[in-house]
Parts: sequence; structure tokens; C-alpha cells
Amino acid sequence: MTDRYLAFANSTAGRRLIGALGLPAPVPLERWMAGRTRPVDGALLLGGAGARADAVRACAHKLSNALFADREGQHDLPRWTAEHGPRLKALVFDAGELTRFEQLIALRDFFQPTLKALATCPRLLILARPPETLEAPQAACVQCALEGFSRSLAKEVRGGGGVQLLYVDAGAEDRLEGALRFFLSPKSVYISGQVLRLARCDTAVDDWSRPLAGKQALVTGAARGIGAAIAETLARDGAQVLLLDVPDTADDLAALAARFGGRSLGLDICAAEAPQQLLGALPDGVDILVHNAGVTRDKTLAKMSEAQWNQVLAVNLEAPHRLTAALLEAGTLRDNGRVVLIASVSGIAGNFGQCNYAASKAGLIGLAQAWAPALGQRGISINAVAPGFIETQMTAAMPLTVREAGRRMNAMRQGGLPQDVAEAVAWLAQPDSGAVSGQVLRVCGQSLLGA
Amino acid sequence: MTDRYLAFANSTAGRRLIGALGLPAPVPLERWMAGRTRPVDGALLLGGAGARADAVRACAHKLSNALFADREGQHDLPRWTAEHGPRLKALVFDAGELTRFEQLIALRDFFQPTLKALATCPRLLILARPPETLEAPQAACVQCALEGFSRSLAKEVRGGGGVQLLYVDAGAEDRLEGALRFFLSPKSVYISGQVLRLARCDTAVDDWSRPLAGKQALVTGAARGIGAAIAETLARDGAQVLLLDVPDTADDLAALAARFGGRSLGLDICAAEAPQQLLGALPDGVDILVHNAGVTRDKTLAKMSEAQWNQVLAVNLEAPHRLTAALLEAGTLRDNGRVVLIASVSGIAGNFGQCNYAASKAGLIGLAQAWAPALGQRGISINAVAPGFIETQMTAAMPLTVREAGRRMNAMRQGGLPQDVAEAVAWLAQPDSGAVSGQVLRVCGQSLLGA
Repeated sequence: MTDRYLAFANSTAGRRLIGALGLPAPVPLERWMAGRTRPVDGALLLGGAGARADAVRACAHKLSNALFADREGQHDLPRWTAEHGPRLKALVFDAGELTRFEQLIALRDFFQPTLKALATCPRLLILARPPETLEAPQAACVQCALEGFSRSLAKEVRGGGGVQLLYVDAGAEDRLEGALRFFLSPKSVYISGQVLRLARCDTAVDDWSRPLAGKQALVTGAARGIGAAIAETLARDGAQVLLLDVPDTADDLAALAARFGGRSLGLDICAAEAPQQLLGALPDGVDILVHNAGVTRDKTLAKMSEAQWNQVLAVNLEAPHRLTAALLEAGTLRDNGRVVLIASVSGIAGNFGQCNYAASKAGLIGLAQAWAPALGQRGISINAVAPGFIETQMTAAMPLTVREAGRRMNAMRQGGLPQDVAEAVAWLAQPDSGAVSGQVLRVCGQSLLGA
Repeated sequence: MTDRYLAFANSTAGRRLIGALGLPAPVPLERWMAGRTRPVDGALLLGGAGARADAVRACAHKLSNALFADREGQHDLPRWTAEHGPRLKALVFDAGELTRFEQLIALRDFFQPTLKALATCPRLLILARPPETLEAPQAACVQCALEGFSRSLAKEVRGGGGVQLLYVDAGAEDRLEGALRFFLSPKSVYISGQVLRLARCDTAVDDWSRPLAGKQALVTGAARGIGAAIAETLARDGAQVLLLDVPDTADDLAALAARFGGRSLGLDICAAEAPQQLLGALPDGVDILVHNAGVTRDKTLAKMSEAQWNQVLAVNLEAPHRLTAALLEAGTLRDNGRVVLIASVSGIAGNFGQCNYAASKAGLIGLAQAWAPALGQRGISINAVAPGFIETQMTAAMPLTVREAGRRMNAMRQGGLPQDVAEAVAWLAQPDSGAVSGQVLRVCGQSLLGA
């Protein structure tokens, strides 16, 4: 669960040796700390023009206390220059009004001068219009070109930086604040090279210090690792949390729940009576449903037993489907609910030795896609979060070479922490995140696993 | 343009040394040879049941002369067993009728016994139903799970094998033969881990020995490398080809064209008069339009000049858009035409030092997506082919370490050849390939570049 290489690489001696050998030099990533309130701890540069930039401008004073624009007088902000401006912690560029190929040069013109003036772990965000909503083919094509640009820039940006592209539907700009608070802060530090779509959403956050206040959450597989981090993060953000894990863990689970005023339930999610027990434990309904429980039984298909296949499919895919269906049918999952399925980069790209696991995780992504339209009619969103290499007991148990390869094969040259996945889940659980549904958000440091 | 390591690794001494050192051991890939007629040079095993399997069965005798099923009496074929059957060159499994999670075990049951009985460069194909067309969420989810399975199996299969997943629309089964001839033969040898959708298509191939007979094709950037291979392959399949490249190459281009009875045109596709000249050179119209011309001007964004940005965008993206628009407007691109845009894995995953190139290639993918619906009304398809690392003069000019990393970072542990891209283009150019539109087909050996 600890990355000794990362620590060594950032010691005085280690830095020298690693530089001399040309080895990967991972940067210590900043994380969100309890008690912090402002999303951007430094200067924010806003560029481009359009409805999205206007929406950013409207809430920018809540994001950072040092706001700049790249042109004189634009957005009524002081002009930033590489010569006289401070180092930049966050950049937002509205590319939504670019409709002709020759206008794409604006990307270079905006980002190039900033690249030598970035603070550590800078967060870069490109806002755009969903290509599929644009009538003119050239305009659609220009918005698509942003994907190649942002994913390339994500591979070039140094110092633990991340670059994302958000396609924002017309009319959805008024829900941007929550996405900005997430993607411009260390909460998204292990996310890079991602593309998401934001649609209109009727529900909003009242209190940004407790965006999940008044919400009841359920987290499966909550006894340790990613599940424990999710439960704790949802509680931090104001939710009442019910922690669920297998009966064996009951004592640990109860102690963990007690730490942040949650409840616990020891339950085998594959048991025949699981749905009934779960309904009984949630008499007042549930708003946030996080299916995190999962197992691995890694083997090449040539050597995989029937039991290894069946266990993984039953726990990782069949149980979340069955429990969600039961909660929906009983009306326990409330209107405007949020369902988050913990998938995996393996489910997207496939992975050697994980035919069973990758099938189950691809199936979860399919579940988000299949259910999103129907659930949307009740204001419920359903998404998958796909972790890459995360430092947990599961990855600590990997053979050394597999573990090291997994850790370094991403743009950050290190594994993520359970907290990184938890922050993504907490964001998707917010009232304003109904803007995102049927999608996959990777928390993988821009993994090289391929697809 | 030659991979010396591949040759060394397959010499007697090299095989020993590379085995001892644990280095990647690439397998020499089989390619389609002129004069060959049967797609599968060995035994074909058909498994699963449903409309797709029935369609395979109906044309299977044209694919292979050694047909088997995995169960007694199924598909009216002899039963194959690991003990008594021959080595398998091609496998097709119809997973389209799997609707419940517990049925997914059928994948393991079908593929597991075959994995130790595969011939070299085996081609594995899973046929399925498009999840988005299924009403029951569980059924949709099961079909999605196939993606994770097939991409994992693609990483496990040895000996230069490839695994693809084809989602076949109801009613599209009668156009499967062309896809089978491609995906079960060496024509697709450098394609693996891919997922495509096949829809209904009204046009069919008359003569499989010359599927493009009577068609007029245009290939840009045809003087060398991938473009030359595309031109030659389209001609092999019966098309009349107009080879286009910059005026400098006119003599070489004319000589190349003469080799297979094509015509040539020296033209700068970015020139103001290019559309008019092109229309003049195609007085009788064009059926197959291949936008292959492209340039790189690699630099990190921090050091990229305005000219480097603009050149790449102008040649790679603006010119194909402008020429296609002109051919459409003038009615020169005929009904049931085929447009193929040569994109790049960089356009999907982004690439270090290629912000300009990746933007242009992502834009081409956007072009295919944006234009597909409107063109579909005239029976025209438009798709992108995304090569990974292909052995050309362009990649030969890369610095050694970048070249070697690029070559090995895929499931095949080697670069592809121009012919591999050309075969994919030729398939998409066929009359029956109207079944595929608005999609991207990667020819990348299941690249690890990420996305």
C-alpha cells in the first residue's frame, strides 16, 4: 500500500540517481485536505469566450482569489502574462465557440505561454459543446478535435498536472460550478485525459461545505480500501452512510462506521435474502447507492475454473444489478438518486489474466448505459467510475513486477489512492451531478492500458 | 522500415537469447498473399447459437474447407474436441442469445479448450447483439460484458492471434460474409481487441475475387507508404484507382499507377484550386474516397510554432473536409459511395509531442461521426481507420528509443505493415461494408497507447 519508489524518487539522493538513470520521476500529488474550502489554491486563468466561460466567470471568485484572463479586459479580469503573472494553479479555456478549423490555433495560443508558468499539480480544463448537438459538420468536427488535443496535452503537462475536456450542453452551464470545484481542485488529482458530457440538471447544491447534507448513502464493500474511503468521503460531505460488507468484517465495519457517525450492515450481497435485508436496513429510502464490492480471481482463461469465473461475475455484476433492481422496484431508491458503479480500466481495455473481471466490469459500464435513460425520467443518474492502479491491499498483493508495471504505466508514473476514487464518487453523488449520467469516469492517471 | 529485432527474435540463436532474457518475442505475422482465395487456411470452429451463427453456417463452406462445431450435431457439423480435432485457424462464437449473467460462462466453456489447440495467427471472432438495441437491461449488460472479455482474451491469445467483437443488428446477418472474409483471414492480422457495429446494408458483393470491380477510387497521399499500399490493394480488388499526391512526386506516382493500371494526379490538396482540379479529374464520378494524405510536425505544445500547428491541421483535417464537401456538392461522390479517413491511434489516445497531429486525427474521427447520418441516406458510408505503429518511412525516421517503444507497445510486440491498413480500407470500401458507418477501426495490434 506504500509506494517506496515514489518516496525515494523525491528524496535528495533519489532525485539525483533517478535523474541520472533516466528513470520515471513521479511527482508527489497534492490531495484535498479536511478543512480546506477554496477549490483552487492559487491563480486561475480563464480564456476563450462563450456561455461556458461566462458561467465560470460568474462563480470564479468562489473558486480562487486570484483570477486572470489572457487578454486585456476579457471577462473583466486583469490580464495574465508569462512575464508578469503568478504561477498558475488552474486553467479554464472555453473552446465552445470555435467552429472553423483555422480557429483551433486558439488552443495553442492560449496554452503555450502558460506551460512554463504552471504551479505544481495544475488543473487544466477545456470546456466545449457536444459535437453531436451541432448541425454544421465542420463545427462538430472542430469540437471533436479537442479530444486529441486535450489527451495529448495531458501527456505533456508536467508536475502532476491533469487535463480534461467537458462537453457542456446548451442550457447546462448553470450547473458548472460543481464540476469546476471538482476538476480544478486536488479532488481530481489522479484524473487526466478524460472526456465527459454535462447535460441540464434540475437539482442544485445548497451548501458547498456539505453538498450531500440530508442524503442517505449506501456503500458496499465498505470495510476497507476504496470502499472505506468512499464511505468516509460521503460522510465528510454531509451524507448519512450505511456501510455494507460481508458478515466476517462486522466488527471492523461497525468501528469504522462509528468514526463518522455512520451505520453498518454485515451482509453477503450474493445471498438469496440480500435484497430483503437491504430494504429492511433502509426503511426511509436511499439517495446515493455506491456499488463498490468486488473480487478478483485472476487466471488466464486457459486455466480459469468455473468457480473463478462464476464468483467474479456473481459478486461484481449480478449482485449490483439485482440489488439496484430491488431498490428501484420497492421505491427505496429515491427520486434524484445517484447510483455509482465502481468498474475498472480493465473493463474498458481488457487485461491479461482478467477475462472474468474485465467482463464483469464492462458489464457494469453497460449497466450504467442501459439504465441511464429510464432512471433519468426520475432525476436519477447512474455512472461508472473506472479506477486504474490504486494503492490498496488488493494491489499490494500483486507480484512485484506486475505491481511496478501497473503503477508506472500512466501519465502520473504512480498509483492513485483510494481517496482519489472516493472524491470522484462524492462528486457524482452531488445533487448537481445529475448533469452526468450513463457515463464512465476513469480515475487512472491517464493509464496506458489501452482500449 | 525493417524490424531487425523481429527477424533476430525468430532466428535460432535469437529465439534462445530472447527467451533467456525474458524479452518480448514477437511472432512473424501471416499476411494475405496474391492468388489466395479461401479466407481461412485451416479449420474453422463455430460455436454458440442464434441468427448470427446461422448466417456464418450458411457461408462457412466458402470460408474454410474444415468446419467444426463444439457440440455434437450443432450446426450440422462434426464435433471438434481438443483431443481429436485439428489445430484451429479461426473461431466464431455467437454470443447474441446470452441474456442472463450466469449464461456468460458459455464464453469460458467455448474458448478454454481451444486455447491450447490454436494454429499460428488464429483469428477469433465473437458475434453479438448491439446492447443499445436491447430492451432488458440485463441482456444489454450481458452483451456489454463481452467487450471486457474479448479485449482481455485478445491480450492472452498467443502466436499472433487476434480477437474481435462484432455487434450485429437484427436483420444485418445477411451481410456478414464480407466481415467474416476480412476478420477470419490474414487481411486483419494486425487488428485485435476491436469492437465494431454492423447495421443493415442494401448493397452486396457480386464477385468475391474482385469485390471492388467497376468502382472508381481516389487515394490521396498515394506516392508511398500506406497510401501506395491502399492504392495497390484497391486495384487488386478490382477498382480503377486515381492516385493523388503532391506535384513533386508526379513521376514516381505515374510509375506506381502504371503498375496496376491506375491513373495519377499531382496536386497539392491544400491549394485553392484543388477541388476544381479534382472534380475535373473525376468526370465520371467516384465511388471510393480514401483520405490518406497526412503530415506530422511533432513538437511539444510548449515549443510548437504557429506554422507547425497550421500545416498539420490544414493538410490532415481541413483538406479532407473541403475536398469531400466539394465532391458531395458536385454530385461526384456517387450513391453507395465509401469514404475512408486515415486517422491515427494518436487521435484517440493523444500522444506526447502530437497536440497538432492528434487534434487533426480526432477531428477526422469527428468528421466520420458527424457526416455518417446524412450520407447514410444516399447509401454512402464514412469511417475512420486508425493505424497504430506502422512500418513506413515516417516511423523509420523516428529516434531509435521512440521507435522501439512504439513498435513493442502492443499485443503483437511489433509494428504493422502498410498492407495491414490497406486491407482494412479495402474491406470498408466494399459494397457490403455499408453496414459500417460513423465508426473507427483501429489497425494497431491492440496498442497500449491508452485512451
